[in-house]
Amino acid sequence: MLTAELLVVGREILYGRTLDTNSNWICNELVRLGIRVRRIYVVDDIYEEISEIVHLILQRKPNICISTGGLGPTFDDITVESISKALNIELEENSIAISYIHDFLKRRNLELTKERRKMAILPKGAIPLKNEVGTAPGVYLKYNLIHFFILPGIPSEMKFIFLNHVKPIIENMQGRDYFGEINIEIKGIPESDLSKIINKIKDNYPDFYFKSNPRGLDEGKSVILLNISIFTSDKNKLSLFEKIKEDLWNNLKGIASSIKVIE
Amino acid sequence: MLTAELLVVGREILYGRTLDTNSNWICNELVRLGIRVRRIYVVDDIYEEISEIVHLILQRKPNICISTGGLGPTFDDITVESISKALNIELEENSIAISYIHDFLKRRNLELTKERRKMAILPKGAIPLKNEVGTAPGVYLKYNLIHFFILPGIPSEMKFIFLNHVKPIIENMQGRDYFGEINIEIKGIPESDLSKIINKIKDNYPDFYFKSNPRGLDEGKSVILLNISIFTSDKNKLSLFEKIKEDLWNNLKGIASSIKVIE
Repeated sequence: MLTAELLVVGREILYGRTLDTNSNWICNELVRLGIRVRRIYVVDDIYEEISEIVHLILQRKPNICISTGGLGPTFDDITVESISKALNIELEENSIAISYIHDFLKRRNLELTKERRKMAILPKGAIPLKNEVGTAPGVYLKYNLIHFFILPGIPSEMKFIFLNHVKPIIENMQGRDYFGEINIEIKGIPESDLSKIINKIKDNYPDFYFKSNPRGLDEGKSVILLNISIFTSDKNKLSLFEKIKEDLWNNLKGIASSIKVIE
Repeated sequence: MLTAELLVVGREILYGRTLDTNSNWICNELVRLGIRVRRIYVVDDIYEEISEIVHLILQRKPNICISTGGLGPTFDDITVESISKALNIELEENSIAISYIHDFLKRRNLELTKERRKMAILPKGAIPLKNEVGTAPGVYLKYNLIHFFILPGIPSEMKFIFLNHVKPIIENMQGRDYFGEINIEIKGIPESDLSKIINKIKDNYPDFYFKSNPRGLDEGKSVILLNISIFTSDKNKLSLFEKIKEDLWNNLKGIASSIKVIE
């Protein structure tokens, strides 16, 4: 079983100026890679705030920590520096990072200023992750068995680095789980009545997670989306979905007005 | 100065199945009420996970803690119970909450089942917040000078309870700040060059927060959105925005290709 925690850095999110869609995208990717996402923290661009969470993460020991935001050339881009300081790792100019930044700037006829060099100042031993859609490279760092990936907050840059560098590294990790899920739309039965039936069924499938999400009313009938999912190291367990569906259909027959698998 | 932290409960968010838009909406509301949002935590529907964050919040002592999610009638709706247990407060059936739930169900010809009664089991001393668009009441609880608001995760229900109950309570709190901001769109100057100019200006306005957000290219020219904001107890400081704008215009004249206040 491999776990991950996300650290989102950015006052603009805390002030409601920016909707964080990065976390949702990353969670989706990680789940499909068989990684369990345990927690998301959104913090201010302040060293002490970042540091407190880094220390909490060191205690909690997820296998993977992915941060987004605060990686640019400006005064308030302090994520790399803050994580490095919190881990007590010295910073140094990384020559590979410099060459990545240089390549990117050359294509755009821009100069390598002091502000831009800042983006190549990485924790000692870190591996820069090439960013081909923006200037700031991502950063990959192993510390106390935790894989830290420090990514930019601009969605296109974050996604580029994730798909091209982070994903291949995670795909090579041992111990990833199998993930499976089904979504079932159930109409005509209120959530609290459905709850009783599900409680009975789910006890037979202890590794599966049953989550009912009320979706309001459709022509006066309550609509519930039931998501059933599992993370498991045993691939055979995925075949139990068929049995769960059978149990559900048998128990809801004549009670729900409609029930169907969606997506 | 009043601060807030948000606790988002829901595995569906950690699994990337649901995009959390509630936090963004709440942050926007809080900022406009002069409350500084310090942190957002997204945690799994597991008692230990909720409890760890509640204890962290007790240490950090924000004035306000708002949780969303996990308030319904089903087996995995454990937020109220978990927060109560983490604070070591006994649970009891709240008669006002029962009457709210009863009213809501009556209008829909639904029965008050055991599963639905669960939504009225609140920490001793808590105040239920009437939910007119769904069944589960919100919960208001003061503990160690922290105002806890426990809200449902369904956006329409969360917003109803926030606007009708939470907001009026916060509006009555002493010590709220004034919040002001301007957004300026600057074209034709790369972020790292702009950074140098802003660094110079911002030193003269220590209480103001300058945040530049690159917005990509427009006809080959770099577009940057500069957000300048302040939380202050001194209303007069808001008038400094005019002087900041003047400084910016003077320093960017002839360098940026365009600069304008937006929104």
